Amino acid sequence: MKKLVAAIDIGGTNTVFGLVDETGNILLKESIATEHFPIPEDLVAVVSEHIKKAFKDFASEYELIGAGIGAPNGNYFNGNIEFAPNLKWQGMIPIADLFSEHLHVKAVLTNDANAAAIGEMVFGGAKGLKDFLFITLGTGLGSGIVVNGEMVYGHDGFAGEIGHVIVYPDGRQCGCGRKGCLETYCSATGIKRTYSDLLMSHHDKANLQARVADAKYIYDKAIAGDKDAIEAFNQTGDVLGLALANSVAYTSPQVIFLFGGLALAGDFIFKPTIESFERNLLNIYKNKIKILPSLLKENDAALLGAASLILKELTKA
Amino acid sequence: MKKLVAAIDIGGTNTVFGLVDETGNILLKESIATEHFPIPEDLVAVVSEHIKKAFKDFASEYELIGAGIGAPNGNYFNGNIEFAPNLKWQGMIPIADLFSEHLHVKAVLTNDANAAAIGEMVFGGAKGLKDFLFITLGTGLGSGIVVNGEMVYGHDGFAGEIGHVIVYPDGRQCGCGRKGCLETYCSATGIKRTYSDLLMSHHDKANLQARVADAKYIYDKAIAGDKDAIEAFNQTGDVLGLALANSVAYTSPQVIFLFGGLALAGDFIFKPTIESFERNLLNIYKNKIKILPSLLKENDAALLGAASLILKELTKA
Repeated sequence: MKKLVAAIDIGGTNTVFGLVDETGNILLKESIATEHFPIPEDLVAVVSEHIKKAFKDFASEYELIGAGIGAPNGNYFNGNIEFAPNLKWQGMIPIADLFSEHLHVKAVLTNDANAAAIGEMVFGGAKGLKDFLFITLGTGLGSGIVVNGEMVYGHDGFAGEIGHVIVYPDGRQCGCGRKGCLETYCSATGIKRTYSDLLMSHHDKANLQARVADAKYIYDKAIAGDKDAIEAFNQTGDVLGLALANSVAYTSPQVIFLFGGLALAGDFIFKPTIESFERNLLNIYKNKIKILPSLLKENDAALLGAASLILKELTKA
Repeated sequence: MKKLVAAIDIGGTNTVFGLVDETGNILLKESIATEHFPIPEDLVAVVSEHIKKAFKDFASEYELIGAGIGAPNGNYFNGNIEFAPNLKWQGMIPIADLFSEHLHVKAVLTNDANAAAIGEMVFGGAKGLKDFLFITLGTGLGSGIVVNGEMVYGHDGFAGEIGHVIVYPDGRQCGCGRKGCLETYCSATGIKRTYSDLLMSHHDKANLQARVADAKYIYDKAIAGDKDAIEAFNQTGDVLGLALANSVAYTSPQVIFLFGGLALAGDFIFKPTIESFERNLLNIYKNKIKILPSLLKENDAALLGAASLILKELTKA
């Protein structure tokens, strides 16, 4: 009998869930609004019912062997979502146990960036790699660190917060309450700030709000040859390259994968990042570490990440 | 029959070697000048002969089961010393193979900081810990990173170079050719530069050379209440605390051990380091990660590190 896993990605706005087979085929994909469920137990019940109902169509050929969950502040060790600032649920939510009870299979949780990193390892460009970094350039900057073929969770389950490495002491104010965090420079939000700063330096402020719609807008301007937009990418890459060069000094990865909106900007972001990276690397690391785009599709990464999390877990036992 | 390992620590000035039992008793400890051996094969031959001769005294009770080697730029994966700037030997030296041939046992190599980190895990304060950092504050700043009970070597054997993380872009010139590396601030050399800068700011330059003899001198001055010396420790701790807080975002260790000359300065270094560390930590890590002095004795750490490297290796097989 072939095998299926339930994959669930809980985000601040939407929860995406589905059924994925062992080769990464997504047989079901649905989405509901997370914020419609003030009580997490209700969300788990509804999502589980959908999954169980959908699974009936596959039950003659497949067995459901487990559930993988990606969620902000998801702790791999205890299966709890812990005090996630982007979710309305307060405190500790035993989300893995809840799904396990409803779906009657083993359920495993980690944060969304870690899940996507495992997705890259199981279904993407990191197949066969033992040491790599996975960086998501979204609203913030998330990261997953893989060492010797294993996800690094740290002593408390919260390793891999490269977005909150302080790159410039007393730099930009970060949502975390501190200053100079990497994600205040290298993320969709970060490049918007950089682009705003550049516009501010030689334009009137009145037009600003309209001009800086989102990171995609800056990308489109860059393609059209806008100097400020191109410079915003250059400055973003400059900071990212430095931070990634520093990151190499920790775990010496073979490849660093960039994922998410900003990574789709191609050479606009990769070129300045790689230049700064090589310039800032310690000699022993130069010219041997690759910075590559993720091979996961933007829309599938969350589900494939959650699926690969449980698939990898089940191979351990 | 009880078991012994050969432990060898190759330094730029001296090579220390000896015999260590499984509980960390050092039964033999000798030292020869590394620089007397322009050809590494000669050093290996002489050290091996000493070890074999000394082992005869223990041969009735013990068997020799392996050799552990710590050396600058020592690569765990291939057993080579690779282009070590602090040694006179050029290029790649297959030092593990050489010792293995002479001693007729398995030989394993890593760099000195990694070896000491494993020493802390096997014989020191990290017993039972699965996730920790080990920082040596010597002439430079060395580091070993342990994740989930295993040393992090990275894809090329050169992971764990926290001393060369750039903390201040365009900061102090580092011996590695780049600027702003952590070890230019947090090391014996670093605190001397900081103390010099402080003296320079309000003393004449003439007395400087005499005043700044070494880090121990600054420590003695601090004990005597000298404001510049105390401030030099404060500034060193301030930078170290920030860098360690950033380090936590990678592997989320349970404990960070400080080893080496500067770590012997007690509260002068630990207090400002811990204050800066907690101030700069991301919220989720606050008040749960300890910064502690290494429990390895300064004089024994190199041998115990090299011994524990091979002891741990042999338990894997």
